[in-house]
Amino acid sequence: MTAQREPKVGRRPGNQDTRGQIITAARDAFAAKGFAGASMRGIAAEAGVDAALIHHYFDSKQQLFLATVALPLGLPHMLEEVAAGGRGGLGERLVRSVLGVWDSELQPSLVAAIRTALTDPALTRSAGEFLTLEVIGHVLPRDDLSSEEANRRAGLVAAQILGLVIGRYVLRLPVLVNRQTDDLVAEVGPTVQRYVDGRA
Amino acid sequence: MTAQREPKVGRRPGNQDTRGQIITAARDAFAAKGFAGASMRGIAAEAGVDAALIHHYFDSKQQLFLATVALPLGLPHMLEEVAAGGRGGLGERLVRSVLGVWDSELQPSLVAAIRTALTDPALTRSAGEFLTLEVIGHVLPRDDLSSEEANRRAGLVAAQILGLVIGRYVLRLPVLVNRQTDDLVAEVGPTVQRYVDGRA
Repeated sequence: MTAQREPKVGRRPGNQDTRGQIITAARDAFAAKGFAGASMRGIAAEAGVDAALIHHYFDSKQQLFLATVALPLGLPHMLEEVAAGGRGGLGERLVRSVLGVWDSELQPSLVAAIRTALTDPALTRSAGEFLTLEVIGHVLPRDDLSSEEANRRAGLVAAQILGLVIGRYVLRLPVLVNRQTDDLVAEVGPTVQRYVDGRA
Repeated sequence: MTAQREPKVGRRPGNQDTRGQIITAARDAFAAKGFAGASMRGIAAEAGVDAALIHHYFDSKQQLFLATVALPLGLPHMLEEVAAGGRGGLGERLVRSVLGVWDSELQPSLVAAIRTALTDPALTRSAGEFLTLEVIGHVLPRDDLSSEEANRRAGLVAAQILGLVIGRYVLRLPVLVNRQTDDLVAEVGPTVQRYVDGRA
């Protein structure tokens, strides 16, 4: 991961090494500046590639972050459907969607990404920002809320979803593993909905 | 941690090495059999010490587990006060107590223990069992509940508390770090109470 870089000359664009070079530079940038602070342009410069070329590999900074923790680049699309339905029923839709992704063949990659994010202090900050800005922030309708109130709700939603996912799939607590998806949706969904709606 | 053991002869009881030997044997036993499956007697035998001697160092298997993840042995005492008040108001008491411990000088040890539990697959199972049986199970009144119902409630409480703690202290999400204890107690406490009471 921290192997010495090749000199930034003589590499052709479009080969596998370029992609790896970009991911290495991205990991360094996220570690140094967080997710919000790093930029596609800065990462391209650090990787020694043209700023346009980076978009050949990654559509967005979100995709670049997912690549640094070895997650599929298409993952955010699952959230679009959740967000599209508006605030009503969002709690249950979000819990069902999250459990669906974690119960899929992506589970090992997701567990590995969570472990990386929780244990590599350099990645923890950017992982937290990514989760808040791009996952929770993307899903919660916040147009009619103050920034403070939107953040308050996002934090509570994040706490509930994180605990459900880490308890069930990383710690593998039998009391959470042995539950049906529908039951968890019915039990945790209303909590998330209350947090989404700003109710106690 | 996995260094070769010294031969099980010639060691005097009561020295620092004996304690370390017991902790190493305990870590191996928890990894192989989980928290519930490991026994004080078996750990003593593996460490090559008398079964009575192990109690000179550790009052209980709980303490032994805490020692394997380098946590203070007195930690469970905080839970007695929470449990003592019965089911009414338990949600707010539990959230306040957990936040109090994590906001104390124990925070670095607790973060390290969580990281160890989440990333060492051999410890993950016993950490999950410890959390469920000794922490959540110890706090929730379950005398009047079926085992299935008590487990259902314990799982939901664990999910909420885990997410709050990991989001605020391990991932350090700004939306959770920037909150006052009283506000989090007022917002998350009612959720935990609903889970404790078995309400949706």
